[in-house]
Amino acid sequence: MKVKKAKKTIKLWEEAKRIIPGGGQLLSKRPELFLPGQWPAYYSRAKGAEIWDLDGNKYIDMATMGVGACVLGYADEDVNRAVKQAVDHGSMATLNCYEELELAKLLCRLHPWAKMVRYARTGGEAMNVAVRIARAYSKKDKIAFCGYHGWSDWYLAANLADNKNLDGHLLPGLDPSGVPRRLKGTAWPFSYNNIEGLKKIVKQHKDIGVIVMEPLRHQPPENDFLKKVKKIAEEIKAVLIFDEITIGFRMNNGGVHLKYGVNPDIAVFAKGMSNGFPMAAIIGREEVMQAAQGSFISSTYWTERIGPTAALAAIKKIIKNKVPVHLDKIGRAIEKGWCQSAAKHNLKISIVGPYPLITFSFEYGEDNQAIKTLFIQEMLKQGFLATTSVYVSYAHKADHVKKYLKAVDEVFKLLSEAIKKNKVYILLKGPVAQTGFKRLTD
Amino acid sequence: MKVKKAKKTIKLWEEAKRIIPGGGQLLSKRPELFLPGQWPAYYSRAKGAEIWDLDGNKYIDMATMGVGACVLGYADEDVNRAVKQAVDHGSMATLNCYEELELAKLLCRLHPWAKMVRYARTGGEAMNVAVRIARAYSKKDKIAFCGYHGWSDWYLAANLADNKNLDGHLLPGLDPSGVPRRLKGTAWPFSYNNIEGLKKIVKQHKDIGVIVMEPLRHQPPENDFLKKVKKIAEEIKAVLIFDEITIGFRMNNGGVHLKYGVNPDIAVFAKGMSNGFPMAAIIGREEVMQAAQGSFISSTYWTERIGPTAALAAIKKIIKNKVPVHLDKIGRAIEKGWCQSAAKHNLKISIVGPYPLITFSFEYGEDNQAIKTLFIQEMLKQGFLATTSVYVSYAHKADHVKKYLKAVDEVFKLLSEAIKKNKVYILLKGPVAQTGFKRLTD
Repeated sequence: MKVKKAKKTIKLWEEAKRIIPGGGQLLSKRPELFLPGQWPAYYSRAKGAEIWDLDGNKYIDMATMGVGACVLGYADEDVNRAVKQAVDHGSMATLNCYEELELAKLLCRLHPWAKMVRYARTGGEAMNVAVRIARAYSKKDKIAFCGYHGWSDWYLAANLADNKNLDGHLLPGLDPSGVPRRLKGTAWPFSYNNIEGLKKIVKQHKDIGVIVMEPLRHQPPENDFLKKVKKIAEEIKAVLIFDEITIGFRMNNGGVHLKYGVNPDIAVFAKGMSNGFPMAAIIGREEVMQAAQGSFISSTYWTERIGPTAALAAIKKIIKNKVPVHLDKIGRAIEKGWCQSAAKHNLKISIVGPYPLITFSFEYGEDNQAIKTLFIQEMLKQGFLATTSVYVSYAHKADHVKKYLKAVDEVFKLLSEAIKKNKVYILLKGPVAQTGFKRLTD
Repeated sequence: MKVKKAKKTIKLWEEAKRIIPGGGQLLSKRPELFLPGQWPAYYSRAKGAEIWDLDGNKYIDMATMGVGACVLGYADEDVNRAVKQAVDHGSMATLNCYEELELAKLLCRLHPWAKMVRYARTGGEAMNVAVRIARAYSKKDKIAFCGYHGWSDWYLAANLADNKNLDGHLLPGLDPSGVPRRLKGTAWPFSYNNIEGLKKIVKQHKDIGVIVMEPLRHQPPENDFLKKVKKIAEEIKAVLIFDEITIGFRMNNGGVHLKYGVNPDIAVFAKGMSNGFPMAAIIGREEVMQAAQGSFISSTYWTERIGPTAALAAIKKIIKNKVPVHLDKIGRAIEKGWCQSAAKHNLKISIVGPYPLITFSFEYGEDNQAIKTLFIQEMLKQGFLATTSVYVSYAHKADHVKKYLKAVDEVFKLLSEAIKKNKVYILLKGPVAQTGFKRLTD
């Protein structure tokens, strides 16, 4: 499955950059982050784990599967059937759609600690709603946070601080331009598994009203980290928000916090939940969620029908087909393949989990980014969208993994030889991939 | 077409209020704002201008048509065909959808002053993006605004002011709970057609960086109001944002500002543009829009394919079928009918435009809300979702208007007699409708 350069597709991206600032709506989909001038920026069709560019090239997607939004795979039959029925029956009306009530009941059944639910349509917006509710409940504006939580003012406010420690943590070279300067000092980052960091923030700022974090990202919690965070939240009467946007519904049927037995006050879901259709849910304890009634949180498109319909269908399928078990199995197989090929070709890599978001990195210091770019280039040539991490989906089957690992083995061999012969930069057909957005903490 | 009480539908709403704070996601869809305990909260199907509740009752929607989101009518064949193809072909992927580029080109062709475009998926979120870009460009945080612009912090900040003049302007009895107190003094409202009000704000606050307004809502601009606002924006180097979320694509093919020959720096579209599918666009002058690159504005679901696909199909149909001309014609017919029946039955009403959003109000002082409730109650009995304003859609045809005006005539007669005999409250089968959210200024 060799592919040709996607000339038409790439040309269109150059055109887009002149009419859309930054070319698109999401940093993580910028071709420049993968393979500048060569990455197929646009797709015409996507099905299962396969995707076609505008030049007719077909690829197997072993990269991000919609930046994590398509847990079941592209154009899943069951979710799509439900969505198309909602479209036929009218996806928006003057009256409400009852599917949002059904979804609320399902989410509370899966998370018995949660009693109330609100919705939004994007993850960033949902985190904004969660923080509004948390601030309304705690009556304190300051936030301690860990990890990535979107484009909102409350979050970017962290980079308004003069503190040099924060320089470069978010977007290298980018100021949080357009975020009101008055919000300076309202958001303070702490590192995952570093409870002392959080303790320090809490000690310095007596008025922390909200603690926001991803319960899991690259590492598992150590030394009862989540429990300790929760204890601090209780002590200082702060609302604890778990951002489950990326990790939710991948490790288990719902929020990963269920696995660790630590319940937040609010949990937020989006990308894991509705297989590519815009949807987000904010679930929480009744007392906290009722604070939403003291604030104005209202938007017309939050009432459309496709979002909750897709989420209901996707969650039911995730549960019925034991999707998290599948993601774990495929992730393990990929990890094993990487290890074997790296060892075989004497290539230095390191791997972090969790399995549904399995990730490796090259261990060659300042050449890492060039080696990664060469990996992406050579995998693309063989018909794979691939980078150094895989968002595993239910559509990834053993056969995809077999083909992928065969290609990885060939490319790892090529990389190993290129590194030995100091030929990495010579083999690159274009510039080294840009490094964009770095996660705020970890 | 008499309907029975929607028992099942209404019961479900009572259940929803226990699990969703406020019952739903949008204030304007609360049954309590129409007919407490009797309004059919949920729909099962909607097609054209017709809608079915969960009890099998069928209504003609002469109310809000999805709170203004369905300009072409429910489940429009042409838009739905395009959307279902996008669903079949994969509505989300690791690569971008090229439809967003096509839509950007179309929006700039319709608005030649605009050279760049960004997207979001809800109107409130889009206004948030627009304000972020405007603040990033002007490097000044303060905002002068007129009208309603959503649930965002920047907007609700206006109600943090101690100024008693603002009390009750937004949500009677509701604080802007959860909005950081530090934002107090960052947003200042002015009234439509009152240029002196804006001048006063600009004089008092030397650092206004953004002026936000709807170019048109209930009244047309008088005394070159829009031109004068633009002149002030230029003088103080503020970014002028026109919120076209409700009015855009109803009066003409694009923003209503085109009709008045006053171009803003940024215009925002959403509900008028994509016939019920979540979508929003921020269009603007190149210099201003490029400021987006200096800020982090990025969200995964902004890259899905349904939104731009629906917008392309809807806008093309709006243009091809001269939809604004139709909305005008139907709006005029409704106005004429209201006037005739009111005169015939000696009922005191007053009417405001524009025709696609034609609105009347009763003129009986403190009894207005009870009379309005009785109107809603009696119209519902006859099979109409109706209140005191009509969001006209392309699906509203002469026959709907004829049936509707016949019912209006009967109900106006009943109201007139009830008022004369002091029987309005006696005839009400439930509580008077709540008055919720008031528009901030007008």
